[in-house]
Amino acid sequence: MSIADLIREKKPLVHHITNYVTVNDCANTTLAIGALPVMAHSPDEVEDMVSLAQALVLNIGTLDNSQVAVMIKAGQKANSLGIPVVLDPVGAGATPYRTRTAETILNEVTVAAIKGNQGEISVLAGAGGEVKGVESVGQYGDIEESARRLALKQGCLVVVTGVEDIVTDGTRLARIANGHPAMGRVVGTGCMGASVLGGFLAVGTEQWEAAVEAMVFYGVAGELAAELTQSPAAFKIAFLDSLAGLTGDGAARRRRVTTR
Amino acid sequence: MSIADLIREKKPLVHHITNYVTVNDCANTTLAIGALPVMAHSPDEVEDMVSLAQALVLNIGTLDNSQVAVMIKAGQKANSLGIPVVLDPVGAGATPYRTRTAETILNEVTVAAIKGNQGEISVLAGAGGEVKGVESVGQYGDIEESARRLALKQGCLVVVTGVEDIVTDGTRLARIANGHPAMGRVVGTGCMGASVLGGFLAVGTEQWEAAVEAMVFYGVAGELAAELTQSPAAFKIAFLDSLAGLTGDGAARRRRVTTR
Amino acid sequence: MSIADLIREKKPLVHHITNYVTVNDCANTTLAIGALPVMAHSPDEVEDMVSLAQALVLNIGTLDNSQVAVMIKAGQKANSLGIPVVLDPVGAGATPYRTRTAETILNEVTVAAIKGNQGEISVLAGAGGEVKGVESVGQYGDIEESARRLALKQGCLVVVTGVEDIVTDGTRLARIANGHPAMGRVVGTGCMGASVLGGFLAVGTEQWEAAVEAMVFYGVAGELAAELTQSPAAFKIAFLDSLAGLTGDGAARRRRVTTR
Repeated sequence: MSIADLIREKKPLVHHITNYVTVNDCANTTLAIGALPVMAHSPDEVEDMVSLAQALVLNIGTLDNSQVAVMIKAGQKANSLGIPVVLDPVGAGATPYRTRTAETILNEVTVAAIKGNQGEISVLAGAGGEVKGVESVGQYGDIEESARRLALKQGCLVVVTGVEDIVTDGTRLARIANGHPAMGRVVGTGCMGASVLGGFLAVGTEQWEAAVEAMVFYGVAGELAAELTQSPAAFKIAFLDSLAGLTGDGAARRRRVTTR
Repeated sequence: MSIADLIREKKPLVHHITNYVTVNDCANTTLAIGALPVMAHSPDEVEDMVSLAQALVLNIGTLDNSQVAVMIKAGQKANSLGIPVVLDPVGAGATPYRTRTAETILNEVTVAAIKGNQGEISVLAGAGGEVKGVESVGQYGDIEESARRLALKQGCLVVVTGVEDIVTDGTRLARIANGHPAMGRVVGTGCMGASVLGGFLAVGTEQWEAAVEAMVFYGVAGELAAELTQSPAAFKIAFLDSLAGLTGDGAARRRRVTTR
Repeated sequence: MSIADLIREKKPLVHHITNYVTVNDCANTTLAIGALPVMAHSPDEVEDMVSLAQALVLNIGTLDNSQVAVMIKAGQKANSLGIPVVLDPVGAGATPYRTRTAETILNEVTVAAIKGNQGEISVLAGAGGEVKGVESVGQYGDIEESARRLALKQGCLVVVTGVEDIVTDGTRLARIANGHPAMGRVVGTGCMGASVLGGFLAVGTEQWEAAVEAMVFYGVAGELAAELTQSPAAFKIAFLDSLAGLTGDGAARRRRVTTR
């Protein structure tokens, strides 16, 4: 059974500690792929909630110190239970606080995957980068090298989103050509991708494959939605519905992955 | 005049202290039924804001201690003014903190209605139950009995959402067959139902009848939307617009209620 | 080049410190007009983030003391760098806390524009007013005079939204007849207007003209969307897409402004 279909069978709980801008989109995305979302941030319950979950997604899009402390608490509990953690270091590189916080989380929590745009990943890899608010600007000719370096340093998967997505564990590297530029004209498609990744890692037996298939699934859903409309707000609706309707077979038929 | 039509005439203010996941949907739902939403959580203003309101909706979907303290403050002010309070104990049963918090609020505030899914209501009734994140799992053969018991214990209405909704005051019990499974595939339809309940309780002269008509209205809007589309994101749009367009007469024509 | 087109060329970063009800709509609105949104509220980064921005939007829709302190910190940094600040005093007049907070921000931060509904502006102008939650109620025959007075007192632009919008610097006054009543049936159209205003002020060389063109652009987008649908949830989608598709020329063709 494909990982996508397995999610719909197992309905894993994906615990999010995330920003208040795109949190509703993350929740609906999680439900659309067949997983169950829960958002909980109180220090009085995050350990209990993550214990019920099959994946934990940490997103620093609207971080503050109390939220970061809770992310670390939840992340360490997830580590102790073997629950995969996804970190979305939104805006790392834009302010010193975001860069420092992403690094702190990576020091305190063992993550299964870091998912960011080219600017964020380049910054965390120590190769510099420019992030305007939460948007990657500039060209990153050496992004594959940066992604590999970060993956090796952290001992985790690194997923870089862009015109083509990259998934690497430091050794293997896949480029995923699925996706559509319309995805970049809607707020939250980065965050929503982390929810999808969380769902796939929750049920996948092999994390590398799960991450590649997550990005294929997400990109194919975007392509299908863009065939219906490319106006951003209508596209977002179509995209969520495309995620809800897509099967593992449907994604496989449009899969465009090269490995190196 | 039906309660639904009365809401559009009186435009009651429904003060919400609620979660950040579905808060926008709750606000748009409130506006769609003809009431006015306001969200305010500062201890420096909740008492003033609730004094302007005709109903208060408390939802613990993303609770923390400071929010709970404010809920109690606002709830007690509402009590002193005779303003009906709706509690949506989201995720009670999932973590001890959520269960305990729901119980604390019920001890400190006299609520007009508790609205939850089968798992949440069963847990609060002391009958056990399983809640996965914020989703009810399992079968609850004795849910009517649990709802009645909780209603009698708290001296309030209990509304249980599910394939059929239940409204009981401990003595009377109505089963409402309106609604559609598509409602369960969108994040927030539970929370949005509490906003509708708040609007109906705000203007209804008889709380039992108001709660029953609220759930009928809400369910009929879901049925009408599902005739247009069942893709979840498009359904949510259709559902909100169905709520906005539905009249008291329109709801009455499709009303399916049995009492026992 | 029109200001609208200039936004799409320059992609200014618009930093928001705003409420959690409509924050996603504000972000998508900002992106739709061609600017880049960022939301950041931690005292550890707001000064750094605003330093990267070309405009700052402060919205007190769900204020509390820690958020207000951060707004002032960010606002003062923006002042020191010459970055225009927009204040949306949501609900001023509804509770003493909101009125007082809006006044405090105006005392501590030099704002480029205050944007509110008739009740909010009238209250801040010292002319009294009634605000039910966040909605203006009542008639304001002297709203032009109130707007002028507030503009002169604060030395800033005042933008009043309503059936016709008003923009004044205390001397010049424009009435903008663009817009559609459907905009009032969606939660967040006030807040979204502040984001548009922020984007226009960010790139406009003349602030008065930028504010007028912002409200024309916003109103025309609403008119075009209302030609497609007036059901509120579908309208919101159409409205966002109308904002995304509208050009400076397109807005100019439907411009209806009278100055006095």
